[in-house]
Amino acid sequence: MGPPQSAIKAIQEGLNLLSSYPDPQYGQFRSCVAAYHQITPAWVLPGNGVAELLTWAAWELSQMEVTYLPSPGFADYWRALQTFSLPIDLYNLNELEEEFKTSKKAGLMLNNPHNPTGKMWSVAKILPYLEKFALVVVDEAFMDFLPPSQQESLIPWVKRYDNLIILRSLTKFYSLPGLRLGYVITHPARIRRWQKWRDPWAVNILAALAGVAVLGEHQFQQQTWDWLIPTREKLYQELASLPGLKPLKGAANFLLVETQKPSSQLQLDLLRKHRILIRDCLSFPELGDRFFRLAVRTDSENQTLLRGLAEVL
Amino acid sequence: MGPPQSAIKAIQEGLNLLSSYPDPQYGQFRSCVAAYHQITPAWVLPGNGVAELLTWAAWELSQMEVTYLPSPGFADYWRALQTFSLPIDLYNLNELEEEFKTSKKAGLMLNNPHNPTGKMWSVAKILPYLEKFALVVVDEAFMDFLPPSQQESLIPWVKRYDNLIILRSLTKFYSLPGLRLGYVITHPARIRRWQKWRDPWAVNILAALAGVAVLGEHQFQQQTWDWLIPTREKLYQELASLPGLKPLKGAANFLLVETQKPSSQLQLDLLRKHRILIRDCLSFPELGDRFFRLAVRTDSENQTLLRGLAEVL
Repeated sequence: MGPPQSAIKAIQEGLNLLSSYPDPQYGQFRSCVAAYHQITPAWVLPGNGVAELLTWAAWELSQMEVTYLPSPGFADYWRALQTFSLPIDLYNLNELEEEFKTSKKAGLMLNNPHNPTGKMWSVAKILPYLEKFALVVVDEAFMDFLPPSQQESLIPWVKRYDNLIILRSLTKFYSLPGLRLGYVITHPARIRRWQKWRDPWAVNILAALAGVAVLGEHQFQQQTWDWLIPTREKLYQELASLPGLKPLKGAANFLLVETQKPSSQLQLDLLRKHRILIRDCLSFPELGDRFFRLAVRTDSENQTLLRGLAEVL
Repeated sequence: MGPPQSAIKAIQEGLNLLSSYPDPQYGQFRSCVAAYHQITPAWVLPGNGVAELLTWAAWELSQMEVTYLPSPGFADYWRALQTFSLPIDLYNLNELEEEFKTSKKAGLMLNNPHNPTGKMWSVAKILPYLEKFALVVVDEAFMDFLPPSQQESLIPWVKRYDNLIILRSLTKFYSLPGLRLGYVITHPARIRRWQKWRDPWAVNILAALAGVAVLGEHQFQQQTWDWLIPTREKLYQELASLPGLKPLKGAANFLLVETQKPSSQLQLDLLRKHRILIRDCLSFPELGDRFFRLAVRTDSENQTLLRGLAEVL
């Protein structure tokens, strides 16, 4: 549904500021994020997308004896930890339900809602891990696709746990991935450490201005929730009624679908016959050819997709 | 003199691309940079400003037993090496004239032209260091302020020395520091390593588009050189004629000036009486209160500055 017009307007108005360096403290942006989440600015730091923040989360995780990554999981978690040659253990998503059996000083990487399954963990499910693990990084890049009353964000817990790092994105919900913008919420001492580690002007001026604009977009937010929830449910039902497909219930703006016909073949047929590109799951080795991931789009686009799928299955 | 109108136009035209991720290969940008420097795209990688690239240069330097940093020098070199707790030795700029006496596997950080002195090293002076040091990082962020015939860039030598990393900025010459854009030129194997280390979308789409636009700005480039060289020389002469000031000859768009009156006092007086802000050198501990740095601006602005200085000295 985005980007919102206010973001484009903020960028256009910011063009005459490009000959200045960004404010290294990103004061206005941090104040707005802090107000939005009802915390204080010292607990917030913007990033050049969540991906840049993952680099610094990984450098923080280099203090751990081992870090647990979700499997399947976003490939960039792996990238960030591999950069610093960190010891990695993968955990199966179902094992998170059980107890981790480790006596090591361990880090945990969580993704809530999870990409690519769309599964959301409850706060109650995660809190025990904050007691158990020396450091917990929770990527909440897709959390804002849930209305506030349904979110399971750990932000209200950040003051209680100084071993908690929360990552948020502004480029998914507001359709601005080309601009690069995310932020981390964590203890101010860690914020100051990251500020010393990384380059002082990690976020460009236009992204910081657009971020301020979109956080005030209450109408856009409400419209997105009003569209997403029924549209995703309808898409889920219709996918489930197609032979050989089994969608998973998801909390984000996408659905993971298990398929009997190999997804690479489905992808090719849909592209050739209907000029529709679905996302295969080859970047998630555990899923491979048995799954694909769909974005929830407008009802009309979803119908076009469903007709195409029905033909090539 | 910037930003050039073509950069602003490229950004405006790029606004409708913000809902897409940047091309992780940054193909168009790398091709343009490669063409500009008469190399091939595999030797080029864009960065979110030189400062971001310094982080990865520092991570590469973590293979060294020691890295030599210029003193005085840009504080961000120090930041990048400190992030990874690397052993640092400072070298006095004059000592570069002599032989470094080290038997260690050592890295060398150079800045050419040098900030804040404005001094430029000849290629002939630097080449022996490429034989002596295991890794040489040359920050050429200000090199494009010299006309091509006067540049002492190491880019023509990068194919000969696989231990050479060259950093370039597009935000100083083209007045775009708010956008964040630089690039590294080095051996393709190192480019591929850095691509694996860092986040895949480090440069926002608008910066990549503006970069392509400004590299074609031959008229802007010529106008900048035509303005800078005589204007800097005139400013130098007039500063030298003021009592208690001793400017250094500089090759970039700034001049470092030694002052008998403490620079913090000069700064305060100029700000109070003339609303002019000069850059003190307190971020260069070796220079402290004995120096300040001036940007070369239009002749009329320089005259305003000189009148102000004459009054407060």
